[in-house]
Amino acid sequence: MKSRKLLMIPGPIEFESEVMQCMAVPTPSHVNPDFISVFSNSLKLLKAVCQSESGQAFIVAGTGTLAMDMAAANLIETGDKALVISTGYFGLRFAEILKRYGADVDILEAQVGDIVSMEHIEEQLKSKKYKLLTFTHVDTSTAVLNNVKSIGALGKKYNVLTVLDGVCSVAGEEIKQEAWGIDVVVTASQKAVGVPPGLALLVASQNAMKTFEQRKNPVANYYGDWANWLPIMKAYENKQASYFGTPPVNLIMALEKSLQLIVNEGLNNRFARHQRAGKAMRAAIRALGLELLSKNEAVASNTLTAPLYPSKIDAATFLKETNQQGIIFAGGLLPELKTKYFRIGHMGSVNKADLLATIGAIETVLKNNGSKHELGVGTAEILKHF
Amino acid sequence: MKSRKLLMIPGPIEFESEVMQCMAVPTPSHVNPDFISVFSNSLKLLKAVCQSESGQAFIVAGTGTLAMDMAAANLIETGDKALVISTGYFGLRFAEILKRYGADVDILEAQVGDIVSMEHIEEQLKSKKYKLLTFTHVDTSTAVLNNVKSIGALGKKYNVLTVLDGVCSVAGEEIKQEAWGIDVVVTASQKAVGVPPGLALLVASQNAMKTFEQRKNPVANYYGDWANWLPIMKAYENKQASYFGTPPVNLIMALEKSLQLIVNEGLNNRFARHQRAGKAMRAAIRALGLELLSKNEAVASNTLTAPLYPSKIDAATFLKETNQQGIIFAGGLLPELKTKYFRIGHMGSVNKADLLATIGAIETVLKNNGSKHELGVGTAEILKHF
Amino acid sequence: MKSRKLLMIPGPIEFESEVMQCMAVPTPSHVNPDFISVFSNSLKLLKAVCQSESGQAFIVAGTGTLAMDMAAANLIETGDKALVISTGYFGLRFAEILKRYGADVDILEAQVGDIVSMEHIEEQLKSKKYKLLTFTHVDTSTAVLNNVKSIGALGKKYNVLTVLDGVCSVAGEEIKQEAWGIDVVVTASQKAVGVPPGLALLVASQNAMKTFEQRKNPVANYYGDWANWLPIMKAYENKQASYFGTPPVNLIMALEKSLQLIVNEGLNNRFARHQRAGKAMRAAIRALGLELLSKNEAVASNTLTAPLYPSKIDAATFLKETNQQGIIFAGGLLPELKTKYFRIGHMGSVNKADLLATIGAIETVLKNNGSKHELGVGTAEILKHF
Amino acid sequence: MKSRKLLMIPGPIEFESEVMQCMAVPTPSHVNPDFISVFSNSLKLLKAVCQSESGQAFIVAGTGTLAMDMAAANLIETGDKALVISTGYFGLRFAEILKRYGADVDILEAQVGDIVSMEHIEEQLKSKKYKLLTFTHVDTSTAVLNNVKSIGALGKKYNVLTVLDGVCSVAGEEIKQEAWGIDVVVTASQKAVGVPPGLALLVASQNAMKTFEQRKNPVANYYGDWANWLPIMKAYENKQASYFGTPPVNLIMALEKSLQLIVNEGLNNRFARHQRAGKAMRAAIRALGLELLSKNEAVASNTLTAPLYPSKIDAATFLKETNQQGIIFAGGLLPELKTKYFRIGHMGSVNKADLLATIGAIETVLKNNGSKHELGVGTAEILKHF
Repeated sequence: MKSRKLLMIPGPIEFESEVMQCMAVPTPSHVNPDFISVFSNSLKLLKAVCQSESGQAFIVAGTGTLAMDMAAANLIETGDKALVISTGYFGLRFAEILKRYGADVDILEAQVGDIVSMEHIEEQLKSKKYKLLTFTHVDTSTAVLNNVKSIGALGKKYNVLTVLDGVCSVAGEEIKQEAWGIDVVVTASQKAVGVPPGLALLVASQNAMKTFEQRKNPVANYYGDWANWLPIMKAYENKQASYFGTPPVNLIMALEKSLQLIVNEGLNNRFARHQRAGKAMRAAIRALGLELLSKNEAVASNTLTAPLYPSKIDAATFLKETNQQGIIFAGGLLPELKTKYFRIGHMGSVNKADLLATIGAIETVLKNNGSKHELGVGTAEILKHF
Repeated sequence: MKSRKLLMIPGPIEFESEVMQCMAVPTPSHVNPDFISVFSNSLKLLKAVCQSESGQAFIVAGTGTLAMDMAAANLIETGDKALVISTGYFGLRFAEILKRYGADVDILEAQVGDIVSMEHIEEQLKSKKYKLLTFTHVDTSTAVLNNVKSIGALGKKYNVLTVLDGVCSVAGEEIKQEAWGIDVVVTASQKAVGVPPGLALLVASQNAMKTFEQRKNPVANYYGDWANWLPIMKAYENKQASYFGTPPVNLIMALEKSLQLIVNEGLNNRFARHQRAGKAMRAAIRALGLELLSKNEAVASNTLTAPLYPSKIDAATFLKETNQQGIIFAGGLLPELKTKYFRIGHMGSVNKADLLATIGAIETVLKNNGSKHELGVGTAEILKHF
Repeated sequence: MKSRKLLMIPGPIEFESEVMQCMAVPTPSHVNPDFISVFSNSLKLLKAVCQSESGQAFIVAGTGTLAMDMAAANLIETGDKALVISTGYFGLRFAEILKRYGADVDILEAQVGDIVSMEHIEEQLKSKKYKLLTFTHVDTSTAVLNNVKSIGALGKKYNVLTVLDGVCSVAGEEIKQEAWGIDVVVTASQKAVGVPPGLALLVASQNAMKTFEQRKNPVANYYGDWANWLPIMKAYENKQASYFGTPPVNLIMALEKSLQLIVNEGLNNRFARHQRAGKAMRAAIRALGLELLSKNEAVASNTLTAPLYPSKIDAATFLKETNQQGIIFAGGLLPELKTKYFRIGHMGSVNKADLLATIGAIETVLKNNGSKHELGVGTAEILKHF
Repeated sequence: MKSRKLLMIPGPIEFESEVMQCMAVPTPSHVNPDFISVFSNSLKLLKAVCQSESGQAFIVAGTGTLAMDMAAANLIETGDKALVISTGYFGLRFAEILKRYGADVDILEAQVGDIVSMEHIEEQLKSKKYKLLTFTHVDTSTAVLNNVKSIGALGKKYNVLTVLDGVCSVAGEEIKQEAWGIDVVVTASQKAVGVPPGLALLVASQNAMKTFEQRKNPVANYYGDWANWLPIMKAYENKQASYFGTPPVNLIMALEKSLQLIVNEGLNNRFARHQRAGKAMRAAIRALGLELLSKNEAVASNTLTAPLYPSKIDAATFLKETNQQGIIFAGGLLPELKTKYFRIGHMGSVNKADLLATIGAIETVLKNNGSKHELGVGTAEILKHF
């Protein structure tokens, strides 16, 4: 029996074998010319994936939270006004981070499973002059998809720095950072980017970098201070070694490989594949009689689906039995609904086979727990879409 | 998109990641005490998997054909009478090999998709005194399953050495070598044994070894001569190094790991899993309106399924389009039916996810080529069985 | 010709192949029970290696600088008095970090190649009430070794929190954190700990944790805030999953393997091996007529050696030619002496073969550039010591 | 302490990490287009390394002995006259193999440590009409180097097929198969070719292939019969799949990588490097007061050195203590001298560092056992040569 179970969680995901092979390559020096070239290429590819030609990329040992932390620490000064558009757990975390650096934070919180309407956001932006606005592309806790392009446009209109939490979206959902006027995209390695956890990734616009340069006070955070990292990133991008902290060499080698595979697939092909996967997954889940946390198709993410458990089966049983079927899901993350829903990641290398396996396991477990659905109605939906 | 396509061919199959990791371990010396222990353990585990406590195991760099060749070369002397029970390509190959060593060979050839009846075999055994009889457990060319236990019993009854070609069955279909009186089981690494290709594997009964020892003439073949290998296998099994040729160290390390996983799963659990997989696969294939090369359930193998193409789609199109769907099948192997059928391997680590992916791909490709089946009827069959 | 050159730099070093294999294991979920156990074990082993039974370990995606940053951010509040004992580049960096969090910092700076005397430190501690003192065990820029036990005792005597920068020493030089009264040991993965870069590692005493708990103000830094990490570390150590940021799964698997190898070797054996390596290296370097940056044997580190270039050869030539000989060294790090000396890392898995290769390359390059030494006098010194 | 000890035996050797990485790549189908291209390339590169543009290459799962067996089985018919020039264990093995296939074998056996003189060989060739002559380039048992070019010329002059056992020489010692008129070169993967054991490798001249095609009787050996393999090798070389036995996919991927590295290094550079290594090793061994099995420099191989133990130390002690020093040697192979000498492999990726480590270990062990040499005189010799 296959020892390896299928990881259908929102990160770490199933990584490509070429990417994993980079992890075990005998570690070169961080100033080895080949590695310098890998690092340079990674920075360029990261900007390409965010579609930000003129942006400044940062690749730092850490997690997605560090990426959020760096955006806040470097752009906020005590007393700055910030608006957080929250669609779940990670929206609220961003608010907490901003406050840590002295921001005066307002939160527009969406109903669970929904987004905040553009009207509501615009109203708020009219009401007060904000320096910075954060929002989550796909909130890992709710599987809700925000409208990045529209919020980007509002940011431009009201001259607010826009910071996108793209942890659960970059390389899975379309982002045109430059065209859409997003000032900072933050993400991490272990989701649609397709690399084992351990990297904080950011791309900042020149506008954001200018704001940073005009700070009046030093950044409160030392490790995350762009002033420390900027010369390093510039040097490596220009194929010169430079030192602030030892870069996580193997992870960056894996990152270059994965970003290259992403670009090779074609960004638009990749986004279309994720859209198909998301649509198929939701259709299959509904065919099995389950409801989704996300309110409607318009706000449903394509990298992640969050179904509610059916009434007849509790969280622990469901997760245990699907695990025995060889599929790993994530439980709920919103504290108040923790045992009411689960989360299925379907991003990165995800393919039709993974979706069939996933729905197949769910069908069996539901059936074994009293569901009346006809076996195969879920997998049939996958086949209809894929 | 996942770079790796799913290998649903009768070998090489999908290998466990723990097994693959052994392949890249820095190669130790073949007389390294740890490796000696690995080799010893591999020999013991191989006997355990064949359920032959008193047998003599051989692990030699080569292929399944070398294993067949060694059985013939060491047990046949010019003029010996041999009976080949053929259920396909590999039955005929055994006949050819036996003749190479001077055997006087009779062949009982089954109809395509069927086995030779026990009555027919017994009749033949009565008619002439044979020294040796060969038969194929699962013929890789036809997916037909032989009745090993009954043929073993006939061998005993008529005092004929029985040689089982278990290349496509060992570790997938039940074999009780000792209890069933099979004198030699030959196999290879890359099928249900779960190890990359490169190993010829045999287990010979003490009866077979006695026949070998009583040969009047030297074995015609040098590399395959048991006289060269026997002291090596005995030494390593007893945890002592010995040299005839340098053993394929990493492959043997991978073999130990895979055999250990097999024994850990439990042989009966493993056979039951293969039976379920075979049954599910056949039911799904039939639900899609395809016919099988194997005549009926009684002779259908559980490691391999051989469906006929539907009339509306030719071999090249089918194989190309399922490949584009991410699933790799093998074309037909019987020369006369090469373009009439294809072969699906489902052995070793195969699980429900693999079966769903396989049938999902077939459903889509058939549908795209004019099939009228309702999408999902195939995957539903998998779910009903698994 | 061997593609791989020998990395004799102070990190990344040459890693054990078992450790590298963990890097490529298919990434499990961070809440997978096996991984939880790996994480738990890593935390315990890290404390064992620091010899701090009652300490609190932290394992976080980042670098050694993050570990320093966390110590400062969590223990310092604005206006706190801190004393930095600096023996090079990383001492000054710690001063900079402490200031970032509002500390009032005094620096006792050693002469290049020397340490600050215990008398001098004690005098300073008498003169003012400090909250916290930092010092560097082995400064990666100078190869100078501090007297950890004595400074720990002074810390106790004057009731000052002691923070040891063990980036270039943990698992290479002896540390008895608990017995010697060191409050925080910070380190990173890529040096003597033997794991690819990407992990910030800390062990804090209960005393340090109490100081943290009694803070009046929140930590300025969000990502590094112990309040975020403490419940996670406690949960994992107790074999329960918990989430703040996705842990760098493969790096932690590699860490567990490396720490286990370290403990298996025996800490005292390991320290003795490093002492032998350091002594041999220095003797060989001196035999070749080169001087060392470190003033005398008493302050010479055993993980790193920093020789001055001989007058006849410039830095670029020396580093290029030793590289062509297959050995990678690090150039100088002290800005004012950058081209005057180089650095040889000899820690972690380093063995006699590595030392011979290193000295062999140096001998040849010196000879080719006019040195009059007799070939072999350097390697002979290695042989005399090892 | 480094877990990995240095393998200085005549195979398996230390393999390049890029080669080992191929071993763990998820096994593709043997008819996968990328693999077909790898196989094609491997066949071409093998010919390039043997410098035989018009030859026929064979790559088969097996060992070096299988390669020898195939040469004999395919070129010899009962009663053929064959001459074996023996310089040790493997010469005598070739005689045994030839006899197995009915050859009438004469053996010219060299004194231990010496070769058979060209005069002696020519005399023998004049005395009788031989069909085939075999000789060993470097006999793994004695480290003696034969004069391939001269024997090739004698073969041409007397119209005898020449079969070179290049197991311990190909890719380490110069071979110009075509220019020197060698009909068959046989070798294996695990020596200077630089790939884990498991592959039998041959390159046969068109002359040899013609002899094979003109056989009167079928080849006695089935697995090794060129008639089975020739269409396969031709198909793969022409980038078409074909099936006789499942090729050892990962080993062939590793082979392509290693052969490519060899060709990238440049054959002449590679041979020169081996010559330097051999010369350095012998000089160092002599400087330590040890004698060599090979009689003089003219017959000393560059891939392997065979020193006699000094009188004061027995084989078991020497091998155990050098092993404890981290270096693995092979004991004697000639039965009559088994405990009188040991063997040091220095081929493939071997570099100056390996030689220093090797000699360093020997120096220490000899010293610890009463040798009076001055420490460093051996390593000094390596430095003088490398």
